[in-house]
Amino acid sequence: MKKTKQPNAFYAQSGGVTAVINASACGVIETAREHKIKVYAGRDGILGALHEDLIDTSKESKKNIAALMYTPAGAFGTCRYKLKSFEENRAEYERLIEVFEAHNIGYFFYNGGGDSMDTANKVSQLSAKLGHPLRCIGIPKTVDNDLPLTDNCPGFGSVAKYVAVSIREAGLDVKSMARTSTKIFVMEVMGRHAGWIAASGGLAAEKAGDAPHIILFPEIAFNREKFLKRVNRCVKKFGFCAIVVSEGLRHPDGKFVADAGILDAFGHKQLGGAAPVISNLIKSELGYKYHWALSDYLQRSARHIASETDLKQAYALGKAAVNMAVKGKNAVMPIIVRKSNKPYRWSIGEAKLADVANIEKAMPRNFITADGFGITEACRQYLQPLIKGEAYPPYKNGLPQYVELNNVAVPKKLKRKFKLSA
Amino acid sequence: MKKTKQPNAFYAQSGGVTAVINASACGVIETAREHKIKVYAGRDGILGALHEDLIDTSKESKKNIAALMYTPAGAFGTCRYKLKSFEENRAEYERLIEVFEAHNIGYFFYNGGGDSMDTANKVSQLSAKLGHPLRCIGIPKTVDNDLPLTDNCPGFGSVAKYVAVSIREAGLDVKSMARTSTKIFVMEVMGRHAGWIAASGGLAAEKAGDAPHIILFPEIAFNREKFLKRVNRCVKKFGFCAIVVSEGLRHPDGKFVADAGILDAFGHKQLGGAAPVISNLIKSELGYKYHWALSDYLQRSARHIASETDLKQAYALGKAAVNMAVKGKNAVMPIIVRKSNKPYRWSIGEAKLADVANIEKAMPRNFITADGFGITEACRQYLQPLIKGEAYPPYKNGLPQYVELNNVAVPKKLKRKFKLSA
Repeated sequence: MKKTKQPNAFYAQSGGVTAVINASACGVIETAREHKIKVYAGRDGILGALHEDLIDTSKESKKNIAALMYTPAGAFGTCRYKLKSFEENRAEYERLIEVFEAHNIGYFFYNGGGDSMDTANKVSQLSAKLGHPLRCIGIPKTVDNDLPLTDNCPGFGSVAKYVAVSIREAGLDVKSMARTSTKIFVMEVMGRHAGWIAASGGLAAEKAGDAPHIILFPEIAFNREKFLKRVNRCVKKFGFCAIVVSEGLRHPDGKFVADAGILDAFGHKQLGGAAPVISNLIKSELGYKYHWALSDYLQRSARHIASETDLKQAYALGKAAVNMAVKGKNAVMPIIVRKSNKPYRWSIGEAKLADVANIEKAMPRNFITADGFGITEACRQYLQPLIKGEAYPPYKNGLPQYVELNNVAVPKKLKRKFKLSA
Repeated sequence: MKKTKQPNAFYAQSGGVTAVINASACGVIETAREHKIKVYAGRDGILGALHEDLIDTSKESKKNIAALMYTPAGAFGTCRYKLKSFEENRAEYERLIEVFEAHNIGYFFYNGGGDSMDTANKVSQLSAKLGHPLRCIGIPKTVDNDLPLTDNCPGFGSVAKYVAVSIREAGLDVKSMARTSTKIFVMEVMGRHAGWIAASGGLAAEKAGDAPHIILFPEIAFNREKFLKRVNRCVKKFGFCAIVVSEGLRHPDGKFVADAGILDAFGHKQLGGAAPVISNLIKSELGYKYHWALSDYLQRSARHIASETDLKQAYALGKAAVNMAVKGKNAVMPIIVRKSNKPYRWSIGEAKLADVANIEKAMPRNFITADGFGITEACRQYLQPLIKGEAYPPYKNGLPQYVELNNVAVPKKLKRKFKLSA
C-alpha cells in the first residue's frame, strides 16, 4: 500500500546561500502542494538525507512558506559536502536509497551550484543502479553565475544589484570629500574564479567620471604599472578614483593578490582581501589617501536590496523543477533562457545534468574592455536586466521581518545511524 | 541699495558625509526659498567661502532640490578643514567677511559635526568683531551620533539601520552554513571613539541565538580571554557566532586593535581593520572557520536603506535652521528633543553653539550590558525609533536615481585669491 501512493519529495539546499535561494524553495514547496506531493527538506542539505534528518515542510503554514520569498539564506540549512563517485563511496548512495525508501521519497530536488548538479546527476543514476524509482531535478543557484547553459543563475542578480548600488553610493561619498580627504575607494567583491560579480559594479557607471572607474577582474592578470597609471589619471581627471576588485584577482604568476603574504603581528599569514593590498599599493606608490570595503557575506545575503528579476526567476525555477519531475523527467535542470534584451524577456528551458555538472561558465573576453579595466556594452546589455526591479521585504520597527521556519523533524524510521566517511 | 535687500545665505556641508545630509540641504534651500532668501552653497564646504567658490542654488530646479531628499553624500562637496582661532588666523576670518560682504551674505548655515559647530561658533562672533551683520546657525550631522544636547544626530539613524539590517542578513547566512562551513562572522563598523554604531547592530538580535551574539565596543577594553570564551560558548550553544566590532576597539593598554601591527609583504604597516585581527585570533585560538566584512563608506552612504525617521529629522533641522535665522537667532543649533519613546515623538529644540562645540557625547555605560558584550534594554529603547521607517529612493533600470546638481558657480566679485595657510 505504502508504495502506491504519491511519493514524497526530498529537497535540499547546497553550498553557499543567496538572497533568493529560499524563493526557489518556495517555488518547489508551493508547486508540490498543488500536486499533493509532500516535501521533506534535508536539514543542512544532503547531510539531512544521509543522517535521516528530514524536515516536514507540510507542518509549515502557507504564510510561512510564502514568507520564504523574502527571506535570505538557507531556511533548512545547507552544507558543503560533495558525494564521491558511486565506485568510491557506494555506502553513501546506498544510505540515500535506504532513507528514500523508508520515507517513500520518489523525487529529489537539489538546489545548488556546479558541484551540486554533479551530485544530483550521480543520484539520478541510482534508480537504475539500486532499483529505487527516483526522479532527480537540479535547481540552479549560485552567486558566482558560473553554471553553463542557463543564461544566468539565481542569486547572482541580487548580488549584482547590491554591488552596483553600493559602489554608486560610495562613489558619491568619496567624490564629495575628495578635494581635501580620501581620493581612493576600493570595494572588494566575491568571485574567486570568474569576474561576473566584479563586472556588475560597472553597471553603476553610466557616464564618464561615474564610479567605478576601474574594475579588476580575476580573468585579467594584475598589471601593477598600468593600474597605477590609470588610478593617477583618474584622480587627475575626476578628483577621485573608485575601484571594484574581485577577490580572485591574480598576479601575472597566477598567485592571488589577496594572498600576497600579509602577516599579522605574530607573523601569521593574514588571509584578508585584495582590497587592502591594492589600497596600500596606491598609498605607497601614489600617496593618495584611501578607504576600502569588503562586503563578504553582506553582498550575498542582502535580501533588502534583492533584484526582482532574480527573485522571480528563483521562484520560477523551483516551480519548473517540480513540474518537470511530475511529468516524469529525470537528470535535468530547469534553466533561464533569454528571449530578448529590450524588452527583457525570458522563459524556462531545460538542460541535462550531465551537461551542467562540474563545468564553469567563464566571462566572455568581449565582456571586458580591451584595456582590461571595465565592462563592454555587450556585458552591460547582458547584466542590466538581471538587476532590474526592487522586491522589498516587509519591515517591522525598522528591520526586515525574515521568517524562521519551525523545521519540524520527520520521525525517524531507521535504526541505523550513518557515519560519514572522513 | 544693495545692502538693504534681503541678504543671501551661505550653506556649507562639512566633514564626512551621510546618507541624509542632503536632506538637511533640501530643508535649508526649500525653506529659504519660501522666505525669498537666495542660498549660495560652498563648493567643498568652507573652502568654497574662502576661495569665493560659491554655488548658486537658485539656478537649480525645484525638482532637483527635492531630489536631494533621496540622494546620499554631499551634493555641493565637503571638506575636512577646521578654522583656527580668530587670534591664530585672523586672515581667514577677514577673508570670510570679505566674501560675505561681496555677496551680501547675512546668514551662515554650517552643516556638520563637533568641529564644524566650533567653526560656526567662531564665525558667529565675527559680526561683533568685524562689523558684518551675520547670523550663524549650525545644523547637526554626524554618523557618529556624538554631538551633545541633541537627542541624536542626523546621519546616525541610517547607518544604524544599515548595520542592524546587514548583521541580521549575514547572521542568517552564517547560521545556514555553520554545520559544515563558516562558524564565525565578524562585521566591522565605524565609530573610532564611541560605540553608537556598534550598538545599533544589537537591534538585530531580538531573541536568544539571534545575530549578533557579541558586540565589541570602543568603550570596553578588549579582554582576549573573556572574548574567546564567549565566542566558544556561542558556537557550542547556537552553532555559530556573529560579532559586530567597532573600528575603535582598543586593547587594555589603549592601543587600537586595528593597528595591531599587521604587515604587508613588504613589511609596511597595513592599516586595516579590527575585523581581520579578531577573526584571525579566533581562528588561531579556537580553530573555527571565519568570514569578515568591513563596510567602511558603504554604511554611511547607504541611502538605499536609509531610516525614514533619520531622513525626516535631517530635513526638519535644515528647515528649523532657516526659520531660526529669519527670527534673528545667532550662534545656535537646532536639536532633536525626544518627547516619548512609545509612541516615538520628537520635536525641534535649540542649543547654543558654544555648548555644543568640541564636546563628544559618549555612550552611557548603562547602555552596555554588564559583561561588555551587548546592549541593554535602555539602549534598545533609545536606538529603536531612530531606525524606524523606510524611505526608498526612486529606481531606474535597477539602480537608484540619485540627482547630480548643476552646481552653477556664482560669478566672482573679488580680485584677490586666497591662499590657505599650510
